[in-house]
Amino acid sequence: MRENHAAGVSASSMRNATTAVILAAGLGTRMCSALPKAMHLLGGRPMISHLIETASAVFDCVVVVIGPEMDALAQACAPHAVVVQAERLGTGHAARTAEALFGDGDVAILYADNPLISGETMRALLAARAQPGTSLALLAMRPMDPGRYGRVVVENGRVTRIVEWKDATDAERAIDLCNAGVICAEARYLRDWLAELRADNTQGEYYLTDVVALAAERGVVRFVEAPEAELAGINSRRELARAEAALQARLREAALERGVTLVAPETVFFSTDTQLDADVTIEPNVVFGPGVRVRSGAVIRAFSHLEGCDVGGSAIIGPYARLRPGTICEEGSHVGNFVELKAATLGRGAKANHLTYLGDATIGARTNIGAGTITCNYDGYFKHRTIIGENAFIGSDSILIAPVKVGDGALVAAGSVITEGVPDDALAMGRARQTNKDGRAAVLRDILKARKEQG
Amino acid sequence: MRENHAAGVSASSMRNATTAVILAAGLGTRMCSALPKAMHLLGGRPMISHLIETASAVFDCVVVVIGPEMDALAQACAPHAVVVQAERLGTGHAARTAEALFGDGDVAILYADNPLISGETMRALLAARAQPGTSLALLAMRPMDPGRYGRVVVENGRVTRIVEWKDATDAERAIDLCNAGVICAEARYLRDWLAELRADNTQGEYYLTDVVALAAERGVVRFVEAPEAELAGINSRRELARAEAALQARLREAALERGVTLVAPETVFFSTDTQLDADVTIEPNVVFGPGVRVRSGAVIRAFSHLEGCDVGGSAIIGPYARLRPGTICEEGSHVGNFVELKAATLGRGAKANHLTYLGDATIGARTNIGAGTITCNYDGYFKHRTIIGENAFIGSDSILIAPVKVGDGALVAAGSVITEGVPDDALAMGRARQTNKDGRAAVLRDILKARKEQG
Amino acid sequence: MRENHAAGVSASSMRNATTAVILAAGLGTRMCSALPKAMHLLGGRPMISHLIETASAVFDCVVVVIGPEMDALAQACAPHAVVVQAERLGTGHAARTAEALFGDGDVAILYADNPLISGETMRALLAARAQPGTSLALLAMRPMDPGRYGRVVVENGRVTRIVEWKDATDAERAIDLCNAGVICAEARYLRDWLAELRADNTQGEYYLTDVVALAAERGVVRFVEAPEAELAGINSRRELARAEAALQARLREAALERGVTLVAPETVFFSTDTQLDADVTIEPNVVFGPGVRVRSGAVIRAFSHLEGCDVGGSAIIGPYARLRPGTICEEGSHVGNFVELKAATLGRGAKANHLTYLGDATIGARTNIGAGTITCNYDGYFKHRTIIGENAFIGSDSILIAPVKVGDGALVAAGSVITEGVPDDALAMGRARQTNKDGRAAVLRDILKARKEQG
Repeated sequence: MRENHAAGVSASSMRNATTAVILAAGLGTRMCSALPKAMHLLGGRPMISHLIETASAVFDCVVVVIGPEMDALAQACAPHAVVVQAERLGTGHAARTAEALFGDGDVAILYADNPLISGETMRALLAARAQPGTSLALLAMRPMDPGRYGRVVVENGRVTRIVEWKDATDAERAIDLCNAGVICAEARYLRDWLAELRADNTQGEYYLTDVVALAAERGVVRFVEAPEAELAGINSRRELARAEAALQARLREAALERGVTLVAPETVFFSTDTQLDADVTIEPNVVFGPGVRVRSGAVIRAFSHLEGCDVGGSAIIGPYARLRPGTICEEGSHVGNFVELKAATLGRGAKANHLTYLGDATIGARTNIGAGTITCNYDGYFKHRTIIGENAFIGSDSILIAPVKVGDGALVAAGSVITEGVPDDALAMGRARQTNKDGRAAVLRDILKARKEQG
Repeated sequence: MRENHAAGVSASSMRNATTAVILAAGLGTRMCSALPKAMHLLGGRPMISHLIETASAVFDCVVVVIGPEMDALAQACAPHAVVVQAERLGTGHAARTAEALFGDGDVAILYADNPLISGETMRALLAARAQPGTSLALLAMRPMDPGRYGRVVVENGRVTRIVEWKDATDAERAIDLCNAGVICAEARYLRDWLAELRADNTQGEYYLTDVVALAAERGVVRFVEAPEAELAGINSRRELARAEAALQARLREAALERGVTLVAPETVFFSTDTQLDADVTIEPNVVFGPGVRVRSGAVIRAFSHLEGCDVGGSAIIGPYARLRPGTICEEGSHVGNFVELKAATLGRGAKANHLTYLGDATIGARTNIGAGTITCNYDGYFKHRTIIGENAFIGSDSILIAPVKVGDGALVAAGSVITEGVPDDALAMGRARQTNKDGRAAVLRDILKARKEQG
Repeated sequence: MRENHAAGVSASSMRNATTAVILAAGLGTRMCSALPKAMHLLGGRPMISHLIETASAVFDCVVVVIGPEMDALAQACAPHAVVVQAERLGTGHAARTAEALFGDGDVAILYADNPLISGETMRALLAARAQPGTSLALLAMRPMDPGRYGRVVVENGRVTRIVEWKDATDAERAIDLCNAGVICAEARYLRDWLAELRADNTQGEYYLTDVVALAAERGVVRFVEAPEAELAGINSRRELARAEAALQARLREAALERGVTLVAPETVFFSTDTQLDADVTIEPNVVFGPGVRVRSGAVIRAFSHLEGCDVGGSAIIGPYARLRPGTICEEGSHVGNFVELKAATLGRGAKANHLTYLGDATIGARTNIGAGTITCNYDGYFKHRTIIGENAFIGSDSILIAPVKVGDGALVAAGSVITEGVPDDALAMGRARQTNKDGRAAVLRDILKARKEQG
C-alpha cells in the first residue's frame, strides 16, 4: 500500500474491505405515506432493493441505516446488515450510527432516495478516492434546474468547498455543479470527521456535508460527475413516477436494442429482470412483473400480464393472458384470452385459448384445453395438482378437481366435473342429460311479464 | 350599496342575485356529430355538466340557452332553467333569449364549449365587475398562438375596445391579449345593451362582443386574465381530446400530490370525482368511471376498470377486475382477474379471484368464491339477490340461482347449480357423477380423423 | 410521344408501362432478427405490404427483389413478381436483377425499408421524370438531423451530383438536402446505366447512387422533396417503433377529423384499414386489428380488442371485449366484459355481457346470453355452428354443444349442457339436482384444518 504521508491519507487498496452505507431512515413526509420512503416500489421492487443490488456488486459490504419501527424495510435489506438510527439528528448522525460496521477500506455514504445510481458511478467514486493524496471523493451533477442544491466550488480540478444555497453569493449561485450528497472516504478518517461534526445550526442537526471541509484540510477532495437521472432525489410521488418513467425508458430502449419488437414501447412496462430474446414481439399494453423470460419467436399479445414465468419459442400469449409465477409455456403453446395460469406447465403445442384457469397443473404436449376449463386446485386449506397427459382433449367448461390425473389421449366431455382419474384414451363424462319441456318457456315468460306489469 | 352616478353604474352587491347564462345552442358542426356540442363527454360527463357544476357554486342562478330539439341536453341541465333559442341569430341574440331569467344583480355570459373555466376565474370576473365605476368585466387570455382571436385593446388598465382580427391593423394584431368572449355586467344595463345590438354585418347576426363598446360608453370596462387551458374553445374532436388530456393531467397531478402512487400516471384515467386516499397504489392502465372511492393501502392492479364503487383499505383489486356501480369491497378483500362485480358487497377478507361474475350479491367476511362462479341474478324480467354468509367456501364453477341464500361456513361443491338455500355449515352438491368409458376417446378420434381425411 | 433528342431522353408517356422495383433483399442485421427486414410488421401488416399497396396504385407493374430463402416474403408479395438476388452485391446489382421485368416506360427503384412513402410522392417523382429533357428524377428530404446522409448538390434547380458524406467538404456537409436513394428513369436508359456501374470501391459493391452521375451526362436530373417521415429508413427496432408511432399518429388524427371521439387518442391503436363512422366513441386502451368497421353511435369501451368485425350503430362493445374475425354485432347489440366472439353474429339488441365465448354462432335479435355461456364449436377436428333464435334466453353458465339449434323464444336453464335442439318457446334443462348435507361442511373443515395443523 502506497502511503502519502504528506497529505496524511493513504491510497485505497483492493485488499481493504470497502463499505457502502445506505441512509434509509427517511419517513418520506413528502410522499404522504405510512410506508418508509425506501420501501416505495420502482420497477416493481422497493427502492432500497435496487440500491442494495447495485452497491453489493461494487462494495465488499453493505450497511443500511433505517429508522425505528421499520421491520419490513429491515427484512427487505436482508442478508445485509441494518442499524437503527433511533433519533433523527441529521445525515452526519445517521452515517455515524453505522460506524461500527465500517470495513477497513473506503466507505461511501449513499441515499435510499437515489435508487438509480449506477454501479459505474459507484466505481468511479471509489477510483477517484483512490487517487494519490485524495482524502475524499464526492458525487456531483449538473441538473437541468440547479434550484436550491448546494454548489460545488472547484479550483484546478479540486473541490475547495460546498456552499449551501442560502449562504451562497450570486456568483456562487451561478455555478451549475451541484452537490449530490454522496461521499466516499477511508473509514479511519471518516470516523474522526464524523466525530468532529457539530450540530450548531438552526435545525440542530449533524450535516454530513460538513465532512467535506474537514477532508479538505487533510488532502485533496475530488468530485465525480454523474447524470442527473441517477442522482435526482425521490422525495414525492411525482418524483417517484418520474424515476419510474426514466427506468422504463431505459428498459424499453434496451429491449429494442436486443432485437425485440415493441409495437408501442411507451405502453409496455418491464421489470428490471425481464429477459427477452431477439425476435420476441410485444404488442401494446403489456405488463411484465418480476421473473419473466420470453424466448425467440414468441408473441406477447395486447393486454397481457406476465410474472415469474418462462415462455417458450414461438408461443403465442394473449391477448388478455395472465401468466402467474411458476408458469412454463413450452415451445409453440398458445394461451388465449381471459386465461390465467399459475404454477402451471403447458406442454409443447398445447392450447388453452379461452376463459380458463389452470392452477397447479401440468398439461402435456398438444393437448387442447377447452373454453371455460377450471382446475379446482384449492380446498380452502391445501393446494393440489392436476396432471393431464399428451394429446388429450378437455371439453369446454370442464372442472378438474385436484388431485386428479387425465391420461394421454383422453377425452373429457364438455361440462364434465372430473373427480377421479381418467385412463389413457378413455372418454370421461360427468354431466346431466338434457330434457326439453315444450312451450314451457312461453308460459314462464307470460308469468314473469304479467308480474312485471303489475309492478 | 355604493352608487357611482358619474359613471352611471352601480357597484354590485351580494344582496342582488347573480346569474350565469350558459350559451349551449351550438350544433358543433366541426365535431361532425349528431350530438349537441355541449353533450360531448369530458372526464366521462357531458361538457355542460362541468360548467353547470362550477357556475352553480359561484352564481345564485344558472340559465342554459339551448337549441331546438335538444331534449337530452335540457335533461342534463336539470334542475337549472333552460330556454330555447329558436333561431340561430348570434351570441347576442342567444343571450337576449335568456333575459327574462336574469336576476337583479350581475349577469355573466358563459359558453358551453369552455367547460373547464374555473370557479376562481368566475369569482375574479364578478369581483372585477364589482369595482367602482365598472360597467362591464370580460375574460381575456394570452394564448400560445393568438391566431384569429379578437384582440383586447387596453389603455391604463381599462379596455377601450375589442378589435376583430379581420378589422385589426398590424399593430393591433401584435397585441397578445385575446378576447375570450365571456362578459359580466349588471342585468339592468345588459338588457339595454342587448336591445341596442344590430345585425348589420355580413352574417346578419347579433354579436355579444358589440356590447363591450356600449358598456365602454357608460363606464369602465375591465378585463380578467385567465389561463388558456380554461378558455380555449372546444370545437372539434381534436380540441375535445386535448381538453380531456389537460383535465387528466390535472387529476393525475392532484392524486400524486395527495400521496397516491401512480406507477405510470399517463396510463391512468380518472373521473373528476374519483376519491383516492393517501397510500393507494394504482398500477398502469386503470380506468376510473364516476363515483369511485378507494381507501388507504388498497392496490388497484393493472387493467382494472372501476365505476361507482367503494374499495376498502388494503384491498387488492385486479389485474383485470371490473367493479361496476353499487360495489363495495371491504377491507382486505381480493378481487382477481376477469372478475366482474355489480351491486355486490364483498366482505372483509373475502376473495373472488378468478373468472367470476357476482351481480346483486352480498358475500360475507372471509368467504372464498371459487374460480368461474356465477350468480344468476336476472331472469329476463327481474333481478334477484344472492346472499352468502361468512367463512363460506363456494367451489369453482358453481352457479347460484338468485334469490338464494348460502349460510355461514357452508360449502358448495365445485360445479354445483345452487337453486335452494344452503344452511349454515352444510355441504351442498348439485352435479352429475363422472363415468369413464375405456378406449372410447381413441375410437372417437379415429372416426373424426377418418372423416377429416375424407374431407 | 414528345421526344427531346437534344437531351437524348424522351418524356414519359402514360402509354408506356411504368414499373416500381422494390429492393427487399435486406436481412435487417440491425434488427437483430431472423426475419427479413421487409417482413417486420407496421400497423399490423408486413412493411412490404404497405409499399406494394401504395406502389401498385401508382405504377403499372410492381417487382420485388428479395434475397435467397425468403419464401414467406415472396408469398407476401403475391401476386406481384418477385426476383431473387442470389448474391448481395449492392443496390445497383439488386436493381439490375429485376431488369428483365422492367416495363417499356419509367422505372422507379424503391426500398422496402421506406414503407410509408406516399402515393402522392410516387406520382410527383413520375411527374418530375416526365418533364422535358429529364433523364432522371430522385427523391430528397431535409431531415431534422442530416447526419451522414449523402448530400444532393443542386444548381439552378437541377441536381448536379450526389456527394457521399465521407467524401464531402465542409461546405457540402452544410447542405441540408439529403439523398433518399429513390430514383426514377426510363427503362431503356436505366438498363444501360446499371450495366455501366463498377464495383471499384472498398465494399466491392455496385451502388445505385452512381447512376445519378451517368444520368446527369445525358439530361437533366431533377429532385422531388418529400417529408422525412416518408423517407426515413427503418433499420432497427427503434426506428420501426418510431415509424409505427408516426403511422398511428396519422391514423388517430384522421379518425378525429372524421368525427370520432377518442377519449385518449394516444392509447388507441389502429390498423390502416380501420373504418370508423362519425359519432363513434372509442374509450382509452383499444386495439384494432385489420378489417374492422364500426358504425355511427357505437361505443367501443376501454380494453377492447377488435379484428375483422363489423360493429353496428349504437352497439356497445366492452370493456374487455374481444371480437375476432367474422364477427358481426348488429345495431344496438351489447358485448360485455371478458366476452369473446369469433365468426359469430349477434342480432339486433342481443346481449352477451359477461364471461362468454361465442364461436361459430348466430344469435337472433333481442336474445340474452347469460354470463359464462360457452359454445362448444370444436371437437378437435371440425368446427360446428350454434344457431340461437330471436328473443331466446340462455341461462348462465350454459354449454351449447354444436352443431345445435335453439329456437325463437326458447329458454335454457342456467348450468345446462345443451346437446340437442331446443324447439321454439321450449324450456331446456340439463343439470343435476342440488342436495344439501347438513353439518357436513363443518366436518370437512375440521378434518382439513386438523390435517393442516399436523403439517
